[in-house]
Amino acid sequence: MAAAAKADNLSLVVHGPGDLRLENYPVPEPGPNGDRVAIEPGSPRENDYFCKIGRYNLTPSIFFCATPPDDGNLSRFYKHNADFCYKLPDNVTFEEGALIEPLSVGIYACRRGGVSLGNKILVCGAGPIGLVNLIVAKAMGAAQVLVTDMNASRLSKAKEVGADFILQINKESPKEIASKVEKLLGSKPEVTIECTGAESSIQTGIYATISGGTLVLVGMGAEMVSVPLVHAAAREVDIKGVFRYCNTWPMAISMLASKTINVKPLVTHRFPLEKAMEAFETSKQGVGLKVMIKCDPNDQNP
Amino acid sequence: MAAAAKADNLSLVVHGPGDLRLENYPVPEPGPNGDRVAIEPGSPRENDYFCKIGRYNLTPSIFFCATPPDDGNLSRFYKHNADFCYKLPDNVTFEEGALIEPLSVGIYACRRGGVSLGNKILVCGAGPIGLVNLIVAKAMGAAQVLVTDMNASRLSKAKEVGADFILQINKESPKEIASKVEKLLGSKPEVTIECTGAESSIQTGIYATISGGTLVLVGMGAEMVSVPLVHAAAREVDIKGVFRYCNTWPMAISMLASKTINVKPLVTHRFPLEKAMEAFETSKQGVGLKVMIKCDPNDQNP
Amino acid sequence: MAAAAKADNLSLVVHGPGDLRLENYPVPEPGPNGDRVAIEPGSPRENDYFCKIGRYNLTPSIFFCATPPDDGNLSRFYKHNADFCYKLPDNVTFEEGALIEPLSVGIYACRRGGVSLGNKILVCGAGPIGLVNLIVAKAMGAAQVLVTDMNASRLSKAKEVGADFILQINKESPKEIASKVEKLLGSKPEVTIECTGAESSIQTGIYATISGGTLVLVGMGAEMVSVPLVHAAAREVDIKGVFRYCNTWPMAISMLASKTINVKPLVTHRFPLEKAMEAFETSKQGVGLKVMIKCDPNDQNP
Amino acid sequence: MAAAAKADNLSLVVHGPGDLRLENYPVPEPGPNGDRVAIEPGSPRENDYFCKIGRYNLTPSIFFCATPPDDGNLSRFYKHNADFCYKLPDNVTFEEGALIEPLSVGIYACRRGGVSLGNKILVCGAGPIGLVNLIVAKAMGAAQVLVTDMNASRLSKAKEVGADFILQINKESPKEIASKVEKLLGSKPEVTIECTGAESSIQTGIYATISGGTLVLVGMGAEMVSVPLVHAAAREVDIKGVFRYCNTWPMAISMLASKTINVKPLVTHRFPLEKAMEAFETSKQGVGLKVMIKCDPNDQNP
Repeated sequence: MAAAAKADNLSLVVHGPGDLRLENYPVPEPGPNGDRVAIEPGSPRENDYFCKIGRYNLTPSIFFCATPPDDGNLSRFYKHNADFCYKLPDNVTFEEGALIEPLSVGIYACRRGGVSLGNKILVCGAGPIGLVNLIVAKAMGAAQVLVTDMNASRLSKAKEVGADFILQINKESPKEIASKVEKLLGSKPEVTIECTGAESSIQTGIYATISGGTLVLVGMGAEMVSVPLVHAAAREVDIKGVFRYCNTWPMAISMLASKTINVKPLVTHRFPLEKAMEAFETSKQGVGLKVMIKCDPNDQNP
Repeated sequence: MAAAAKADNLSLVVHGPGDLRLENYPVPEPGPNGDRVAIEPGSPRENDYFCKIGRYNLTPSIFFCATPPDDGNLSRFYKHNADFCYKLPDNVTFEEGALIEPLSVGIYACRRGGVSLGNKILVCGAGPIGLVNLIVAKAMGAAQVLVTDMNASRLSKAKEVGADFILQINKESPKEIASKVEKLLGSKPEVTIECTGAESSIQTGIYATISGGTLVLVGMGAEMVSVPLVHAAAREVDIKGVFRYCNTWPMAISMLASKTINVKPLVTHRFPLEKAMEAFETSKQGVGLKVMIKCDPNDQNP
Repeated sequence: MAAAAKADNLSLVVHGPGDLRLENYPVPEPGPNGDRVAIEPGSPRENDYFCKIGRYNLTPSIFFCATPPDDGNLSRFYKHNADFCYKLPDNVTFEEGALIEPLSVGIYACRRGGVSLGNKILVCGAGPIGLVNLIVAKAMGAAQVLVTDMNASRLSKAKEVGADFILQINKESPKEIASKVEKLLGSKPEVTIECTGAESSIQTGIYATISGGTLVLVGMGAEMVSVPLVHAAAREVDIKGVFRYCNTWPMAISMLASKTINVKPLVTHRFPLEKAMEAFETSKQGVGLKVMIKCDPNDQNP
Repeated sequence: MAAAAKADNLSLVVHGPGDLRLENYPVPEPGPNGDRVAIEPGSPRENDYFCKIGRYNLTPSIFFCATPPDDGNLSRFYKHNADFCYKLPDNVTFEEGALIEPLSVGIYACRRGGVSLGNKILVCGAGPIGLVNLIVAKAMGAAQVLVTDMNASRLSKAKEVGADFILQINKESPKEIASKVEKLLGSKPEVTIECTGAESSIQTGIYATISGGTLVLVGMGAEMVSVPLVHAAAREVDIKGVFRYCNTWPMAISMLASKTINVKPLVTHRFPLEKAMEAFETSKQGVGLKVMIKCDPNDQNP
């Protein structure tokens, strides 16, 4: 990360649930190669079975930035494993760099779902995670993406960033929604990406997906859910979850550098690090999508 | 199909639920190439999307022998789509040929699970389907297969046909069973093959499988089940079902011809076609494993 | 198949190498469901091993329209296996429908190569096949596609339809070209799609592709070629060929219907069926890209 | 590694091509957890792109034991990255542990080839690498493995360790051999594993493999080879090489522990470390298969 004007290291520190404080932390001693980089927050501590097979996100002892007990990086200066810092090309802004993290959730989920050219895709939920999945699915060549949500204004944002169809959910049953989805798309979708975690939405995903297709669970809901598993099993609808992401940073940077993907509409609010508390408050209220905290006092514009 | 001594065509016909009758059907006119063959019961009626992508078992209009309204083939003479009749090598008996069907369930489930060399496998249920999955998993190179069941005599049969570990289930919770499985195998299994359909057993499969592994649902249970889906999703345990099988006959025949696999211990009872009612009664009582009905009066031995 | 104004059936018939004649053929009797459709030229005659595993293009006994001894369909009326006729949505023109065939070559080659989001791709050759591969690779989310050719005007067409980089080949050695490719892309490409068939270009593909990547051979060249196979093997660059295509029509139609892909720039010349000889002559001279023959007298515009 | 009786550290050191010397090296200071372990010789120095996608064998900066400039481990004491030391179960001997390395070549090649249940496999070459591929292919469920070689005594060893068919090559052309292979197996093999590196044998592999199958190149031959690549491409015979191996140790240990695989017949000669020169001489003369050097003075038996 570029050096701030002064050698202070203002940092947001979590002291307990809900207890966030802005403090001045010591500036860490950089290793060699400090460059403009994007940081992948998860960095394995050992090279275990999961790392070796290319699924390092599953390694239990991983360091994950901002997941207690590991410290976060809402600070002016931050030191990170160099193997998980990726150089940003000159034509990618810091703000785009910061959006690689949510973008990665979409890349990884769509990859797990096997989204491919010409597919019809159902995305359940039009929050930030639903939207990155929509953007990525289109970038992977999906022919038609249908996004569902209960909230009309979220759906119009979905339409704005590329949804081919939107469907507002009211009190329909999962089977009724599945049937509407099939009618709108002309056939059942090959992949459904569930981003709400709601039991009824998981049920919808099972009913809606084409035989032999895939339902990806991105949203995290209740510990136990009641689902028509036999309906998925007998139609060979595979159910796959995602745990964060892996192997997404380099391709995300390539996408941003080549301008093939546009993530800027996702940012609806910006705050300087000094106003981090206000940023969290805004996010908590659910107004807007991505609330961006700008740590470098010299880089406060989009 | 070998010709019977006389030109009768004794056939078992289902007239309604529980109403099975032995009748003399007309002998069908054979097409060209009638040979000793094994019959794959599912034969697609059209070449649709599912057929074209190599998953013909999912095509909705498939003819499936003995699934109403399609007639079965418990008869002396039977005519079938030649593309789904597979020549039996001289060193494969008719009885082995008849076991390709249950064997296919195991081949297909293990393939869907991605069972591979050196894997540790959990098979839930030691009935005929559990046992073919055990046999196939070992043939695919699984290092250790653990079979669970509530019934001790079924488990000892599992041990006999190759289980490395058996575990009798009593009143343990799914989490407790998962923990015992991990202890016995030394680590969590890469693949779990659930053959009971019971809700608690599906739960066990989710808890027991290693992160990044696969749970295959073979057993069919209740329409709705309550399961810890988030536990599977967040550890990326994929959940895959099977609908019958596809692309298994040729490899099953190769296996039988090369004597790499031994399915004979699965047959515990044999009846001539004339005693078909008795055979169904035996099967219904759940004594033994595979009850074989021998349609050719000249071939009544193993 | 749309009915022509009059019941003539003008047809282009190949009587021998170079001996093409326009003749009036009998109008074939249509089966049920005659609709506006796109025709997939290959249609398997039997359901063999290759069909069953979803690779029907490899079945040796396939009927393939216009591949001797099978008749072609440059005629006003033509009868084809209904399972290989795909309904065209209203917003897809006949001309777009006719471009599904070349587009399929690109879809299939890119799919075989595993082109995916964020990839860097090298396409060798900027003829029609090179261009459809370029278009499809971009649609699949490739971040950067570099196209090589010896011909400057072909390369500028490549630039026009979306190439991120073009590289004109003169007398450089394969290793020199590979090195230039790496410099332009910033790293070696994950997938190289070779569309020329030239020995030196295959060599370039081997040197240029990243370790663990894939070289797809689309161009067909000499029977025997001299290549640095050990260089591919030791860096695990997989070499995969393509034989026509399979499972591409439905997704190509979806792409065209959703306007995600634009194939119109590929058509540079149009001739009515009556001038088919002239069309073949134009194509032979290598001027332009796709030369379109319009069989329906009522549909002569783009 | 178990401690030797005395604290000497006799080591075989390569001073230059052909210049091998036995020297007394300092005993390295062990880190924590020194246990009975098998050592995977390749251990990545950084966590780069290749490591992160699970193909750490391709990382260019890898430390590889005994590949100059990296030191080997023919010594009494040796220190290695703990993440690449795998605990040996009590029922696996040190000698079996030492055979994991050649076994890994077979596991990795068969996995790259996608060897699976019921497959017919062609292995070209009956040297040690050919034999481990044969053993592994059978363990993965191959129905029939055919091994070719010019040497009759090597072929009878192949027969001994499980080959279903052997074929002695004399002066037949590649096409003639391919035709004999098809006749013996009843159909073309799904996978061919080429272990000689000879140009003619690579050609045989291309002609012999079934359309849609895979040719794995394990043997390393001349820089340039002349091959009928178009014949492979047009039948979609994929050509894949292997560079050493990755992700094989844990499964190899599981296989050995469960006694599913027997590698002992591979060892034909044993020498104590003091006679290492003699061992290398024996190996160079090509008599026998695996020549084992026993480093622990207390462990000199099989």
